Amino acid sequence: MLTPQNYSQDIVELSISAWFYRNRAIAGFDNPARSLYVSVRELMENSLDACEEAQILPEVTVLLKREKETLGTDVLSQGPEIFELVVKDNGTGIPRETIPLLLGKMLTGTKFTHKQSRGTFGLGGSLALLYGQVTTQRPIEIVTGQKGVGYGHRIKMRLDIENNLPIITEEERVPKSMDEHGTMVSFWLQGDWIRSKRRIIDYFTHTAIIVPYASLFFETPDDEVIKYDRVIRSIPKPSIESKPHPKGIDVEMLKSMITSTRKRTLKSFFIGSFQRVGSTIAEEFLTSIDLDPDRTPESMDQEELVCMMNAMEKFNKFLPPSAKTLSPVGTKVLQAGVQRLAPEFVIFRQRSPSVYEGHPFIVETGVAYGGQLPPGANVIRFANRIPLLYDERSDVSYRVVRDLNLRSYGLKQEDPLTFMMHICSTKIPYKTIGKEYIADIDAVRKEIDLGFKDCLRELSKNLRTRNRASIHRKRESRLSAYYAFTAETLSTATGRQVSIEKLMGSQGGCSQ
Amino acid sequence: MLTPQNYSQDIVELSISAWFYRNRAIAGFDNPARSLYVSVRELMENSLDACEEAQILPEVTVLLKREKETLGTDVLSQGPEIFELVVKDNGTGIPRETIPLLLGKMLTGTKFTHKQSRGTFGLGGSLALLYGQVTTQRPIEIVTGQKGVGYGHRIKMRLDIENNLPIITEEERVPKSMDEHGTMVSFWLQGDWIRSKRRIIDYFTHTAIIVPYASLFFETPDDEVIKYDRVIRSIPKPSIESKPHPKGIDVEMLKSMITSTRKRTLKSFFIGSFQRVGSTIAEEFLTSIDLDPDRTPESMDQEELVCMMNAMEKFNKFLPPSAKTLSPVGTKVLQAGVQRLAPEFVIFRQRSPSVYEGHPFIVETGVAYGGQLPPGANVIRFANRIPLLYDERSDVSYRVVRDLNLRSYGLKQEDPLTFMMHICSTKIPYKTIGKEYIADIDAVRKEIDLGFKDCLRELSKNLRTRNRASIHRKRESRLSAYYAFTAETLSTATGRQVSIEKLMGSQGGCSQ
Repeated sequence: MLTPQNYSQDIVELSISAWFYRNRAIAGFDNPARSLYVSVRELMENSLDACEEAQILPEVTVLLKREKETLGTDVLSQGPEIFELVVKDNGTGIPRETIPLLLGKMLTGTKFTHKQSRGTFGLGGSLALLYGQVTTQRPIEIVTGQKGVGYGHRIKMRLDIENNLPIITEEERVPKSMDEHGTMVSFWLQGDWIRSKRRIIDYFTHTAIIVPYASLFFETPDDEVIKYDRVIRSIPKPSIESKPHPKGIDVEMLKSMITSTRKRTLKSFFIGSFQRVGSTIAEEFLTSIDLDPDRTPESMDQEELVCMMNAMEKFNKFLPPSAKTLSPVGTKVLQAGVQRLAPEFVIFRQRSPSVYEGHPFIVETGVAYGGQLPPGANVIRFANRIPLLYDERSDVSYRVVRDLNLRSYGLKQEDPLTFMMHICSTKIPYKTIGKEYIADIDAVRKEIDLGFKDCLRELSKNLRTRNRASIHRKRESRLSAYYAFTAETLSTATGRQVSIEKLMGSQGGCSQ
Repeated sequence: MLTPQNYSQDIVELSISAWFYRNRAIAGFDNPARSLYVSVRELMENSLDACEEAQILPEVTVLLKREKETLGTDVLSQGPEIFELVVKDNGTGIPRETIPLLLGKMLTGTKFTHKQSRGTFGLGGSLALLYGQVTTQRPIEIVTGQKGVGYGHRIKMRLDIENNLPIITEEERVPKSMDEHGTMVSFWLQGDWIRSKRRIIDYFTHTAIIVPYASLFFETPDDEVIKYDRVIRSIPKPSIESKPHPKGIDVEMLKSMITSTRKRTLKSFFIGSFQRVGSTIAEEFLTSIDLDPDRTPESMDQEELVCMMNAMEKFNKFLPPSAKTLSPVGTKVLQAGVQRLAPEFVIFRQRSPSVYEGHPFIVETGVAYGGQLPPGANVIRFANRIPLLYDERSDVSYRVVRDLNLRSYGLKQEDPLTFMMHICSTKIPYKTIGKEYIADIDAVRKEIDLGFKDCLRELSKNLRTRNRASIHRKRESRLSAYYAFTAETLSTATGRQVSIEKLMGSQGGCSQ
């Protein structure tokens, strides 16, 4: 901490990249195993986001290669080694001018808009590249090309971490066909494959469930290949960028919005800056607090802004935030994805949009039963189509499942049950920068709880029907044995052929 | 995340304060209860650091007052309310020019030096003030004065969060005596006292144990007073700023050190920039990698730097990092602090300095037994004199205690035992920005483990001695009853007075 005594010394304000470089453990880069897992994940998420945004069915290839030197010397070494990580997608490709900024600079926020996307903190991809550079000092290579252009770009760059700036060290045009498009990022990093293997493979398995419309290919350092072909060709609609909701901001934000607006009146500022505020509501709100709708925004002073913010919090005629900007996965896609687990039954429910702290969200729940599922209740969690693997017990959905009374649905603790939860939102309430688990927020908990209960009721109905059908089948087979005996006895007694069908028909038997 | 499609939009590079403003939940400001706790803690830590650095016995007063309006309307409301938080210390005071920078700007790092201090991320205090401003929009007030000056300064300021700049809105000189010195920070913030009360009070109780040389005074919003007078007048020696150790840096850092050095030769750069590198070692190292010790630092290119860094990692003649810069609490102070728990026995051990990843650290362990301690094994954790209260089960010391075999020390699971652990280091290996728990690092775990075991052995010896003494006492009292009877019988038989003392003396009895 800064004290009066040490203040005069060499103290600096760090850039956001320099701060994260020094504190990278906080963002999951705390040991070679975890860092390898987080790097694979972050780059894959970038690729999936880039494809889906352009509504391209994703094809993502990940290659993780041990550096040859290390291989030669000690293959079974348990410590950290150097790896090359290559992530290639078929997205739209990146225009030349934006390559260094998109990948070489931590751009950590949009000014005033919200949008559902996998990343949340604006760090992930760049932190992985930063970690690679710090641990290996090798340059980052990017090859990218866009459709309709006869060449692509190959760029090598380094990061100037202290100043949060990319430095291009090599660059060339590479020939390609007009139709090709996509981006390949490759860089070197320190990692520990032995200790991260299980996580990384779990990550692929779960991603294949939530993104069944993608083809995923992963070549491990052990030369194993993990491959998931797409099983469905529909892709969720893209999410849309949205203005903030009047209830989702604070005075700080209101102030900077007002400072930078180009609107001439408070009324047009309200209509133009917030979602779901029309002419009528804007006017009604402003007159309710005695503000002239035609006043200029820049004339508002600090005190008036505080007063306005307080009034915004209390005003109850703003429409709830729009969920149109969100992009849930949808039952069809989830159904296709979960088939990878080969359950006997699976029930999905998409809940209606809800709101926490001004942010809209949609919860999708699923309960799978039987088939090849392992015994006992498992929870699989997703947020904005990212699988969440760590800290399960801290996650709100785990707590919801723990508190369910399975017996009231005719289920037993040891039944093979898998609970699935996907939440999408313009702001996922993560508790850590590492995006491990969802906070226990009342509104979110309620939606997950209702979703799971709804699935369980339906599942329980299905199971009853199945059980009734199986009882029926047993009874029928007993009956037909009895009739066969009767028919035979009658045939012998009467001397003529008595058909079982006739007997069962007369009895109003179960067969059709 | 940034995708090629959304790149061209309103994307900005945030200042460190703007990033934390948007992601404050990550640093513990995720709900009004937790935010209140973290704010009290961060400001108190600033005050304690400021006093100790100047070797002043700390006197810290914390007042937490409910806003009167809220009081009037609904005292028992469970939701968030507005509070005024006042933290006053008797430190050296802050010179006028540095007030706004010290408190109004997130200054997040020193350039190349390390120092043991309570804060780690350079955020705590400023984030609390930022949180207060965001939730209440009221200015921050600072009154501070230095010894030997006949006046102090009162300043009101606001934070320009987007630009990480303080804005002074009011300022005046206030008269004071020449002898007075100290700083008072007061600001308003949203909080939830009902839900944070227990934590905040625990925080004071534990601080009083680790800082028994401080007088702490806390007035709660319920007008209760929690007061700990100092019980000892010795204060640990101040920690000293240190240069990095050659094994504690990476190429990124090496590069920026070389870029900014004023030394003319590689040899003098090594001697001047790193700790424990003298002329002989510098020369030996440089010649071992065929570098001319008289070469200029700026002539090193990227490749040579990488090569130098790799060589530094392998070179085994650097002396281990110096622990002289660290400031452990010391057995005498710990002993005084733990008396607040009124145990029957207490054993402390200070381990020798050790090193992880180039950072020196010292572990101090203690085991208290009996007296007023609650039954069962408890763990109290401290790091750089901060009590750690959250996420106990994730902490390395909890795991060490869990794996101890108490029975082999003659102890039972339900015995009243309190384990205390203090680690001091120039870089505490926290796992979260909220400073909740210590990572499970082999070198750290080993020191804690050995420390606890050493304490337990000593405790077990003490207990055996005590038990032997108590057996002795019992035996003695049985013996003296027997001798009394014998003396009486003999007196009656012989007709003269036989003294017990004489009988017991002849038997070589236990009493002295």
